[in-house]
Amino acid sequence: MFPQHVIARKRDGQKLSAAEIGSFVQGATDGSWADYQLSAMLMAIYLNGMTTEDVAAYTDAMMNSGVVADLSGVPGIKVDKHSTGGVGDKVSLPLAAMVAACGVPVPMISGRGLGHSGGTLDKLESIPGFNVNLSLDDYAKQVAEVGCALIGQTKDLAPSDKKLYALRDVTATVECMPLICGSIMSKKLAEGIDGLVLDVKFGRGAFMKDIDAARELATAMVAIGRAMGKGMTALLTAMDQPLGRAVGNAVEVAESIACLRGEGPEDLMEVTYALGAEMLLLGKVETDLTKARERLAQVVADGSALTKFGEIIAAQGGDARVIEDPNGVLPQANQKVPLFASRGGIVQDVDAMEVALAALRLGAGRARAEDAVDPAVGITDLVKVGETVQRGQPLAVIHANDDEAWAAAEVQLRDCIKIGDTEVSVPPLIAERIA
Amino acid sequence: MFPQHVIARKRDGQKLSAAEIGSFVQGATDGSWADYQLSAMLMAIYLNGMTTEDVAAYTDAMMNSGVVADLSGVPGIKVDKHSTGGVGDKVSLPLAAMVAACGVPVPMISGRGLGHSGGTLDKLESIPGFNVNLSLDDYAKQVAEVGCALIGQTKDLAPSDKKLYALRDVTATVECMPLICGSIMSKKLAEGIDGLVLDVKFGRGAFMKDIDAARELATAMVAIGRAMGKGMTALLTAMDQPLGRAVGNAVEVAESIACLRGEGPEDLMEVTYALGAEMLLLGKVETDLTKARERLAQVVADGSALTKFGEIIAAQGGDARVIEDPNGVLPQANQKVPLFASRGGIVQDVDAMEVALAALRLGAGRARAEDAVDPAVGITDLVKVGETVQRGQPLAVIHANDDEAWAAAEVQLRDCIKIGDTEVSVPPLIAERIA
Repeated sequence: MFPQHVIARKRDGQKLSAAEIGSFVQGATDGSWADYQLSAMLMAIYLNGMTTEDVAAYTDAMMNSGVVADLSGVPGIKVDKHSTGGVGDKVSLPLAAMVAACGVPVPMISGRGLGHSGGTLDKLESIPGFNVNLSLDDYAKQVAEVGCALIGQTKDLAPSDKKLYALRDVTATVECMPLICGSIMSKKLAEGIDGLVLDVKFGRGAFMKDIDAARELATAMVAIGRAMGKGMTALLTAMDQPLGRAVGNAVEVAESIACLRGEGPEDLMEVTYALGAEMLLLGKVETDLTKARERLAQVVADGSALTKFGEIIAAQGGDARVIEDPNGVLPQANQKVPLFASRGGIVQDVDAMEVALAALRLGAGRARAEDAVDPAVGITDLVKVGETVQRGQPLAVIHANDDEAWAAAEVQLRDCIKIGDTEVSVPPLIAERIA
Repeated sequence: MFPQHVIARKRDGQKLSAAEIGSFVQGATDGSWADYQLSAMLMAIYLNGMTTEDVAAYTDAMMNSGVVADLSGVPGIKVDKHSTGGVGDKVSLPLAAMVAACGVPVPMISGRGLGHSGGTLDKLESIPGFNVNLSLDDYAKQVAEVGCALIGQTKDLAPSDKKLYALRDVTATVECMPLICGSIMSKKLAEGIDGLVLDVKFGRGAFMKDIDAARELATAMVAIGRAMGKGMTALLTAMDQPLGRAVGNAVEVAESIACLRGEGPEDLMEVTYALGAEMLLLGKVETDLTKARERLAQVVADGSALTKFGEIIAAQGGDARVIEDPNGVLPQANQKVPLFASRGGIVQDVDAMEVALAALRLGAGRARAEDAVDPAVGITDLVKVGETVQRGQPLAVIHANDDEAWAAAEVQLRDCIKIGDTEVSVPPLIAERIA
């Protein structure tokens, strides 16, 4: 099968066979397609699209281009969550612990932060000793024993995705629904899951700026997951202001722990419960969303969710005392400087993207993949849209390790928190459910 | 200017600036665009097309990616002809000599044969001593002194075209009108011409199989040439059966000499006169096609066209005695075996593509660019569609240097010459004129 013949068929909008799609993905994995052939194919896919069936074949080939975790030895229906990424989105941490505490195994392989979007791995690594680099065997063993493992992608997992993503990045073929779906789903399905809940975010702080694009992506991913025999549900959630009140790494772990105590910010609790309830349904331990939500509230109230988080941390070599004394265990920034309101009024707007850039300036995120993150820095106690503030009241606390970075972040943060006199109604956080 | 930003704009169907198109072509020339970026761009162009203005900018950038021949020192309006390639198409040889004999300078840079299509350079090199590798300085000097030079492409001429063509070949982006136009026109305009006559062939033995595609290409190239300030005319000519009665290299030179004596096959004379008349008009030595044609017939009748051909050959180191004694000077095959008709009747069909493949089997052409050609072998005395033949009469003469090749060619040639009892009307050779 000559690459140029497969490219020509895609170019002409013809339906590809699974073998042709397989040849393309195999070509990316073993180099039997040259980079210039892969990129011509990617552009043809970008412009001509792919049917759900094609994307399923593509996802399957990507998944099978590497190792697929074998969790068949773990009893129960394994369910994970995937978020398309947002600002202050630490949901994975409390969610995994809550759902595991309810008896649904949660095998979770996550990524690192890049650009405005934070990464679960970076947050977890701010817990001293926490090891995200487990082998797939140890990962499977931990899911069986603890009910959850939170690890990073190994190089054996969907290697074709890594190759193709790098090419897409430099050939203007990133923003392509079928390619995005295939990339996300192949990595998630390689985890060995039976079900997946998607948190597809839309808004200024999300990859998808409007709800229509988010709905399209969510619908496509649900269809593909179903075509591959997985239980699938998606929620479309708003990402105009940051989720919760903390943005950074250690500071988000601390907020996650508060959430597991039932003391997290309202919006964070709401999204975590909503996604968790869906996971309990897919995991077949509950059949009703209201009951599922009550059960989550119960494992929070009785402390078993927090205990589960401690077990996960301990199993992965982290200092589990963090669940009792977050600030004593987590790295702390040199300076924790409040940002005071220069006028009183109602918070009109907190632009998630601007807050993310402020956190990036502090060193909490990465401008480029090879950058390091500072685990201690970030933003806490951030006001929410619609809240009333007094002049001189703190709008946020900036955690900085560097005067210059603090100054830059301070200006950026001040600019993006708008205070006025108009009553503000915040649109619903959870906009739609696709099941 | 990042390559991925230019690619993204083309991908989205936005109008590119000349600077953006220039960046792409420059990137192909100097490697500042990676191959995978060039190929993604080529696919985006393939699928989204290009406006005439874009193709003109592309052609201009390609032309200027290398050296442009400077013929400003040559008096007169310099006019060339370009053919999209056919079987038995030796028109360039007699045409250049005839037009130069009429006082229009003909600077002609040609290519080699590949696949079913013969190459002017291969034909010329069958003349002992003929050197197609002149420097651009010597080329300009010869056009000034002799009125014509027939040379091969130097590596300095439109180098970006060579790079992009190689990529197109392996990424399914060859059959793309704007890219074909740019490739042809950039090389032709780099010759330093003022006007160009296009012979756009259609039919089984041509690159374009139907007249609509040929018309589209011709119209596009005329528009682009005009946009770049050149005099342009195109003829659409039929290529279902070979042009003339000879297919090969030395055998086509011999037929060209016959043509210059006014003794060439009718179809070859017709196309040569038609293209030549257009060149005389563009060269502004005639204003009327009928008169231009008469003038060409006159330089044939008085021997000055043949003399001019001898001058060109001598100027390029070739043995000019060939014009008086073609068979004595040109290389001859070991075997010249007639192919006899096994029945009498009317020639219904002579498939140009099949004849080309028979010639290829004899060694007259190239299957791959790195192959050598045998100058002596080929086919002569080929019957034409509509002619009446008797049983036992020769349908062609096969010139072979190898028994096996002869046998293979004999079978192929016999199969493609169809003889029947029906009267056949041959459609006009020159189908349309685009000016």
